[in-house]
Amino acid sequence: MPPEQSDLLSLCKRRGFIWPSYEIYGGVAGMFDYGPLGCVLKNNIVEMWRSIYKNREGFVEIDSETVNPVPVFKASGHVDEFSDLITYCEECKEPFRADHLAKGLHSNPDILSADELERLFEKNDVRCPECGGKLGKVEEFNLMFKTTIGPGSSRAGFLRPETAQGIFVNFLNLYRYNREKLPLGVIQTGRGYRNEIAPRQGMIRMREFNMMEVELFVDPDDKGWERFPDVENEIMTLIPNDGNEITVTVGDAVGKGIIANKVLAYFVYTTQQLLTALGLDLKKLRFRQHLDDEMAHYAADCWDAEALLSYGWTEITGIADRGCWDLSRHAEFSGVDMTHFRRFDEPKEIEMDVVKAKHKALGPKFKGKAKEIAAAIEAKAPKDIRNGTITVTAGGETAELGEEFFEVVRIKEKVSGERVIPHVIEPSHGLDRIFYSILEHAYTYDEKEDYVTLRLRPAVAPIKVGVFPLMDKDGLDVLAASIYKELQSGGIPSYYDTSGAIGRRYARMDEIGTPWCITVDYGSVEEGKDKGTVTIRDRDTREQRRVDSKDIVKVINAMLSE
Amino acid sequence: MPPEQSDLLSLCKRRGFIWPSYEIYGGVAGMFDYGPLGCVLKNNIVEMWRSIYKNREGFVEIDSETVNPVPVFKASGHVDEFSDLITYCEECKEPFRADHLAKGLHSNPDILSADELERLFEKNDVRCPECGGKLGKVEEFNLMFKTTIGPGSSRAGFLRPETAQGIFVNFLNLYRYNREKLPLGVIQTGRGYRNEIAPRQGMIRMREFNMMEVELFVDPDDKGWERFPDVENEIMTLIPNDGNEITVTVGDAVGKGIIANKVLAYFVYTTQQLLTALGLDLKKLRFRQHLDDEMAHYAADCWDAEALLSYGWTEITGIADRGCWDLSRHAEFSGVDMTHFRRFDEPKEIEMDVVKAKHKALGPKFKGKAKEIAAAIEAKAPKDIRNGTITVTAGGETAELGEEFFEVVRIKEKVSGERVIPHVIEPSHGLDRIFYSILEHAYTYDEKEDYVTLRLRPAVAPIKVGVFPLMDKDGLDVLAASIYKELQSGGIPSYYDTSGAIGRRYARMDEIGTPWCITVDYGSVEEGKDKGTVTIRDRDTREQRRVDSKDIVKVINAMLSE
Repeated sequence: MPPEQSDLLSLCKRRGFIWPSYEIYGGVAGMFDYGPLGCVLKNNIVEMWRSIYKNREGFVEIDSETVNPVPVFKASGHVDEFSDLITYCEECKEPFRADHLAKGLHSNPDILSADELERLFEKNDVRCPECGGKLGKVEEFNLMFKTTIGPGSSRAGFLRPETAQGIFVNFLNLYRYNREKLPLGVIQTGRGYRNEIAPRQGMIRMREFNMMEVELFVDPDDKGWERFPDVENEIMTLIPNDGNEITVTVGDAVGKGIIANKVLAYFVYTTQQLLTALGLDLKKLRFRQHLDDEMAHYAADCWDAEALLSYGWTEITGIADRGCWDLSRHAEFSGVDMTHFRRFDEPKEIEMDVVKAKHKALGPKFKGKAKEIAAAIEAKAPKDIRNGTITVTAGGETAELGEEFFEVVRIKEKVSGERVIPHVIEPSHGLDRIFYSILEHAYTYDEKEDYVTLRLRPAVAPIKVGVFPLMDKDGLDVLAASIYKELQSGGIPSYYDTSGAIGRRYARMDEIGTPWCITVDYGSVEEGKDKGTVTIRDRDTREQRRVDSKDIVKVINAMLSE
Repeated sequence: MPPEQSDLLSLCKRRGFIWPSYEIYGGVAGMFDYGPLGCVLKNNIVEMWRSIYKNREGFVEIDSETVNPVPVFKASGHVDEFSDLITYCEECKEPFRADHLAKGLHSNPDILSADELERLFEKNDVRCPECGGKLGKVEEFNLMFKTTIGPGSSRAGFLRPETAQGIFVNFLNLYRYNREKLPLGVIQTGRGYRNEIAPRQGMIRMREFNMMEVELFVDPDDKGWERFPDVENEIMTLIPNDGNEITVTVGDAVGKGIIANKVLAYFVYTTQQLLTALGLDLKKLRFRQHLDDEMAHYAADCWDAEALLSYGWTEITGIADRGCWDLSRHAEFSGVDMTHFRRFDEPKEIEMDVVKAKHKALGPKFKGKAKEIAAAIEAKAPKDIRNGTITVTAGGETAELGEEFFEVVRIKEKVSGERVIPHVIEPSHGLDRIFYSILEHAYTYDEKEDYVTLRLRPAVAPIKVGVFPLMDKDGLDVLAASIYKELQSGGIPSYYDTSGAIGRRYARMDEIGTPWCITVDYGSVEEGKDKGTVTIRDRDTREQRRVDSKDIVKVINAMLSE
């Protein structure tokens, strides 16, 4: 691993951002716990995402369960499609991702089939990287964690591989909540699970991870967005699927047909706003369009936000127009209607085929019952005709009637609307990857001074203020402790530190990204012009200024809302 | 179910607080999703809990993984102990909780063993409640959801039944983060899983639920609490394990030996503060001490906060002094030292037994090697003596030496501290149960008016303000929309409603607990004394007052921080 990556990971562990899970029991690959600083930073990311999607866009949030019954993932396609190709060493039994073993032997190993990989291994005599043993068959390994719901083994369940399905299966509840109107924006954050074969990339590939997903249901014929004019002149760096990077305005990206529609482009740009507000370096951020063979067959268009990390360009968010796929699959598998009733501005005259009874033929044949049978016939639709006959029940009797008794007629009728399956625009964020990218982009090492500063944005920094009495006595401690208490109870996360030289205390705070440090010195408590004031030091400029200690909360809040 | 319970559940579903999970696929018992209003209410509960434990008490928060490897729950005892007794109908194969089938046949069925239950069923000819079939054997059913981590079936894992273990296994990381000091308070919120046999009590018994857990590590010899004096005169209603309800001050509860110690009593009272701040009715809240046969064998004392619900008195939080159980078990199973180094105020002289070599006997026997052997002997401790002999290795040779070569001597030594296993005080909150209790206690039905008001505290209410233009025209809509936008972007969740008579709009907001409604009427926009003002209506008093529309955010924020 590159030196900066290993330094950052060691900082994360030492200072309480991230700990490998279950270390006292030997650890489990691909699992990490958020320590005290990491947990706050992660929550701050979620809050900023919420403030954009809930406060600005008016979306609603739900929280659905993580253990799902099988039908959910039959419908979503995960039971059949969510897998990697695996091979085990026949000697040491170690499992490997087959495409990883083919690296260097093929330009794009992850598009190869199991057979193609087996032949490639045979041809190149690829053997077990651990023991040199012979590799076994290449086969599919489904990446969902499996479990059983309730006693017995009859009811299987899976841990969700994404939070999105919890929104789709609740579509009707949400649609009713929104008074049956579109657009309908829904967000959800929570755990996702992916039972990786052999995860080896730190927080980039976790078996249990955190997501922030957004599902926006729109009318398929209206892919504009009310606030699109607010962003159309903003600039983005895009790599369309022709591979040529360009810098364009949001408006031009749509106008030139690079991004499929306005609403998708709006949320690609929203993603850029979110990621840069969180502290990602715009110069290390790009949006790459999925290649044709990379994109799901149902998607109309899909873009990945990629951050440049020590791992290379890494997907941290995907923004897709998923068409009607999700709702039509769940409608198909559940038998539940998941359409939107699109009301016309005014009723429209439409042409439709209906079944009409031939009264002249019915009368002589059915006498007194003819009227009732005619009504039963006209309650049917053309789709009910089978082999030229129609089956009706009237007066407790069922009869199969031939074409002499009915006809299909085209009529005109006024209707007030029509049913359509909403399309889904989905910005889906990998929370842990964003978390890690923020840390890598904020990490600054000054070689000359051998000094680490984490240049976190104040909004995401886990601790906003360090509070130090220069000496832990002479009343300096009393004033400093009261400032600390005032900040904490004002909801400003702070850290009180009395130990070591003041330079070391600053260094501890710089290393975890605390934007400001307050020091109470002798001037603060002794008679003179500085009495009652304290110094505030800025992490990045290292400049200090004196502020009245009574104004601290106000001053910090003002800087936080900048 | 009691009528109010069913009315409340139907309100929850209709208005988007709670939805049974996977309804379109027939549902799964014991699983619920939080809809838009429920999700916000739940988050508001978490925020209030955080503000007490993080801002006031200075505890830290972590977020650990939910899929755990087996050793974690071997150590915690869940692999062996976390089970219910189950029996299947031999005809229809339906599973039942055995103790539930014994209700009415025994005063306390959940203390019966499998054998005792089988005999009870036989004696009373208990049969399957579904089909009348014969019941099978009664056996243990472990309530953890099981899964497999990674490919192959070699590595089993469990979904955590509580968030607490994630804190215990990270104790050393947390202890270092806290600079090796006690007390050390840690909180965690997240999912817990309990694979119930047949859950049938709504949100009271969920298979996948939400917890807010607090683990406070304290010095076993110091069970006081710095802020205890702040609460010692406060009043609580307690039911000690003698069954006689009493109302006492926090101070007396400790002084009279009712609650084991000050720190436990402090957090019992803190729980009362939290629950009442969230809106629980103090008259429907009590603290019940665990009976001796109910309490875990390792616990020093344990209290349940119980809310009076339509289900009867229901545990919603447990507050326990768990002694050294958790850390000593993990130390034992992991082999990792999990002690705290308790530094003495000044070095202490302590007496201890050590092994001394008998040089006079060693010299003649071992000659030139005697010195080396003597050193090896003195590196041993009295516990290394087996059957009067001690085994040492010196100069590559191992020798078993009898008592003629060593002796145990009591010496005095100065030491700067000693190692102790921290004790754990654990307030553990059932988030979904608290959520549900808040709703039941807030639910108010006026029979005369056939009118439902949810009297949620403003701090937890999912929507703070309803904003209505009296008519959706004449500029009333413009002013109302701008007020709505200002509230939303100021982070005050609001709801804009233009549809229906104003009384119906108030009723919609009252039913979901919105504390205030703002109406823009003709006075707001027409020339006259009311121009520029709007009405604010209070949910509980239904009183209205006029406020300058420019002051709305300030006025609402002031009421929110009351």
